[in-house]
Amino acid sequence: MSDYNELMGFVRETEALSQVAGRLGWDQETVMPGGAVEQRAEEHGAMASVLHARRIDPRIGGWLETAVAEDDVAAAQIRHIRRSFERAAKVPAQLASAIARETSRAHRIWAQARADEDVAAFLPALDKVLQLKREEAQAIAGRADPYDAMLDDYEPGATAAQLSAMFGAMRPRLVALRGAIRDKDPAPMLRGTFPEGEQMALTRDLALAFGYDLNNGRIDKALHPFSSGSGLDVRITTRTNVDDPFNCFYSTIHEVGHACYEQNIDRDYLLTPLGAGVSMGVHESQSRIYENQIGRSRAFTGWLFGQMKDRFGDFGIASADDFFACVNRVADGFIRTEADEVQYNLHVLLRFDLEQALVSGDLLVRDLEAAWNDRFASDFGFAVDKPSHGVLQDVHWSEGLFGYFPTYSLGNVYAGCLHTALRADVPDLDDDLARGDTSRATGWLSDKVQRHGGLYAPRDVIARASGGAPSEGPLLDYLEAKFGAIYGL
Amino acid sequence: MSDYNELMGFVRETEALSQVAGRLGWDQETVMPGGAVEQRAEEHGAMASVLHARRIDPRIGGWLETAVAEDDVAAAQIRHIRRSFERAAKVPAQLASAIARETSRAHRIWAQARADEDVAAFLPALDKVLQLKREEAQAIAGRADPYDAMLDDYEPGATAAQLSAMFGAMRPRLVALRGAIRDKDPAPMLRGTFPEGEQMALTRDLALAFGYDLNNGRIDKALHPFSSGSGLDVRITTRTNVDDPFNCFYSTIHEVGHACYEQNIDRDYLLTPLGAGVSMGVHESQSRIYENQIGRSRAFTGWLFGQMKDRFGDFGIASADDFFACVNRVADGFIRTEADEVQYNLHVLLRFDLEQALVSGDLLVRDLEAAWNDRFASDFGFAVDKPSHGVLQDVHWSEGLFGYFPTYSLGNVYAGCLHTALRADVPDLDDDLARGDTSRATGWLSDKVQRHGGLYAPRDVIARASGGAPSEGPLLDYLEAKFGAIYGL
Repeated sequence: MSDYNELMGFVRETEALSQVAGRLGWDQETVMPGGAVEQRAEEHGAMASVLHARRIDPRIGGWLETAVAEDDVAAAQIRHIRRSFERAAKVPAQLASAIARETSRAHRIWAQARADEDVAAFLPALDKVLQLKREEAQAIAGRADPYDAMLDDYEPGATAAQLSAMFGAMRPRLVALRGAIRDKDPAPMLRGTFPEGEQMALTRDLALAFGYDLNNGRIDKALHPFSSGSGLDVRITTRTNVDDPFNCFYSTIHEVGHACYEQNIDRDYLLTPLGAGVSMGVHESQSRIYENQIGRSRAFTGWLFGQMKDRFGDFGIASADDFFACVNRVADGFIRTEADEVQYNLHVLLRFDLEQALVSGDLLVRDLEAAWNDRFASDFGFAVDKPSHGVLQDVHWSEGLFGYFPTYSLGNVYAGCLHTALRADVPDLDDDLARGDTSRATGWLSDKVQRHGGLYAPRDVIARASGGAPSEGPLLDYLEAKFGAIYGL
Repeated sequence: MSDYNELMGFVRETEALSQVAGRLGWDQETVMPGGAVEQRAEEHGAMASVLHARRIDPRIGGWLETAVAEDDVAAAQIRHIRRSFERAAKVPAQLASAIARETSRAHRIWAQARADEDVAAFLPALDKVLQLKREEAQAIAGRADPYDAMLDDYEPGATAAQLSAMFGAMRPRLVALRGAIRDKDPAPMLRGTFPEGEQMALTRDLALAFGYDLNNGRIDKALHPFSSGSGLDVRITTRTNVDDPFNCFYSTIHEVGHACYEQNIDRDYLLTPLGAGVSMGVHESQSRIYENQIGRSRAFTGWLFGQMKDRFGDFGIASADDFFACVNRVADGFIRTEADEVQYNLHVLLRFDLEQALVSGDLLVRDLEAAWNDRFASDFGFAVDKPSHGVLQDVHWSEGLFGYFPTYSLGNVYAGCLHTALRADVPDLDDDLARGDTSRATGWLSDKVQRHGGLYAPRDVIARASGGAPSEGPLLDYLEAKFGAIYGL
């Protein structure tokens, strides 16, 4: 057996174990008995320790020295393996286990602090996590920028400088768009209650309409919607709220975007580094284009309006145009995950700037809340009323996920680029969407983006699909046109 | 940290991984998407390979040389670890992987052969598995009896000689009891259909009535009922058939017996070798005493009759006595898993004698079907009509599980001993059971057997609980009395 094949055999087994560990997470959020929490923590810990040991196994270094790539696919596999091995090898074992321990602790403290609206209770734990993650980033980056090393973990190849330029151009246009909408009459709202069983039935139809393959997946309810797994077993969750069926439907469509990416990767890459979405940004581009550019389009919402009338009767919306405005309603709010397309990126940009300043040391943890509240008031025009609506709202920093937030907005930028190219390639797409048929849209995404898995670098896969270097322009043009039409700007 | 503590830390992580691997099996039988089979096989393989490597990890040998047991519990832990390590270390890696490969292959061939009623198609695969398992047993047993080494895998300390004496004494009395019943009028049968939703609701009540803790477990449907997991997460499955609610209810009670054993083990033993049922025989003693001696007793079936009338209305049974006879109906049948209390052990004894002869070489695989059919005709008085009703009915041999069958009957023998002691300790137990209250019965079993987990050797835990060396006498006396009364013998 060649060194390359030996290496791939080892890596394939690691990927299989990683799928098992991921499914343990799915189980915990959907079907696990409540009393199993303590034991589950040990099971998670044992899997994490097995996976970590395999990822830094010195045999990988040996194989990498001698393995020969005979084609582009093999070269890409080796590139992924080398990157992951070298990153892992640079982090001392003691630091890795301190990070695991302190993030687990900080996560518990954060949850309690959020419940208690007590920022001060969280700050010492956050400070500890920040120090450890900075130390890790410095070990990886050497003399380069530690924040870039963090970012690289979620979005290989991206740099803070590049994203700052992109996001810097977005912010004023988004703030202006938001301000213009705020001066207009609010869009109509749904009235009535929407039985949960009917929501789940329609959510299943929506998942199928977007190409989700239930033969390689399943839909369950969970507290937070997520997609889990790669390859032949990619499961999603959603949630229901009798007052707010859109939360269920658009959570489902969002997760279906993530899940279809994983389901549609070339089967030759199954259980290899190429067999998973290439980055968080590209992943988010798929979930967001499914959810927003397709799922919240005038054409598709026209079809959805009919489906909802058939199932729920009258719910206070008179026309398909009103329904379109209702689905895309822009309203004041504190919470990122509940934000509309216009305001979502403003929430992300705030976090991106603050976490960069935390990592560089320009912002001290003790000044974080004030900085958050100042920036929020400046972009949104009103004040944060309590910490759970502000600096304590997101789980990410407690878990040490510095560098993760910007991938959300990068995903939206990528979705904008892909959407423009898709519309150019399929000019009559709205005829399909108006019938609830997404197959040409999702087929285009599958062919241009999803099937490649990790074969190309994140920016490259978007550039190849959209015909040029990614930029924020298409997203902003799309938002201004869409919301300009809805609000008569 | 002491060597003992280091050893236990390592073993604890292995036990946690083993729980994860087991839950992967649960997932596959209950919630896995159909298209995930291939990937799942790789995931199972990866977990098995991780677990195997840990079980033969040479560090265990080192720790065992120096670890000091400071109490009985530690001594028992070390005894289990040493036994498992020494067994695993005696089997060459190549042989272990050949067994994994060939049993997986033989299992597929068996399933097809059973569907095709084609014994000849299965025999070469069976022969290969038999040779490999014999080789493994010889590696473990050295100059001792290879069948005993197989048996020891499921029932530590048991020997074929001991079981042959026990089972030899059972066979004539069971054949005679069966013959006497056959001459009598058959017991009444259920009539009607029993909606599956109502069956599942009652099955849940039954599980709770027998002490199953849903905070550390859950009940799902699966093709075959099973119990899965140890400690804080012990799940069961059952099945429904609109014509046959007893199949659902008694499968549930049986699996609850297994599950309560795992749930009720002393929590100090969580994720250690003492934290699981000590042997297949003792496990089966719990499932069978729940199912039969308690669940099919005149007193408990009186309560169940009322529950079923409340839920299903009239189903053609006039009185509680008729219902008791119906639940305990003895009828001709080919299939072990569907057999009543009287005939079940005759099915097992047949397999025990045949598999011993296969392992010793006294019986050749090519003569197996004829030997099966002869023995069946002799004990049951009628002829096997097709291979799926005879030699191809069970999965065990295809999976290399030689030595497993006798633990079923040993479990019944143990249940007989425990039942006699339980009745002596709680003379008015029937008053409880007639109200559907099993708490004194299951509490006694929890205290006398279940909580000890792997602390005592299998025969010892039964002897301590029942006050003497286990023998077949109590089981046979119980069966003759119970069925004598039902059939007026």
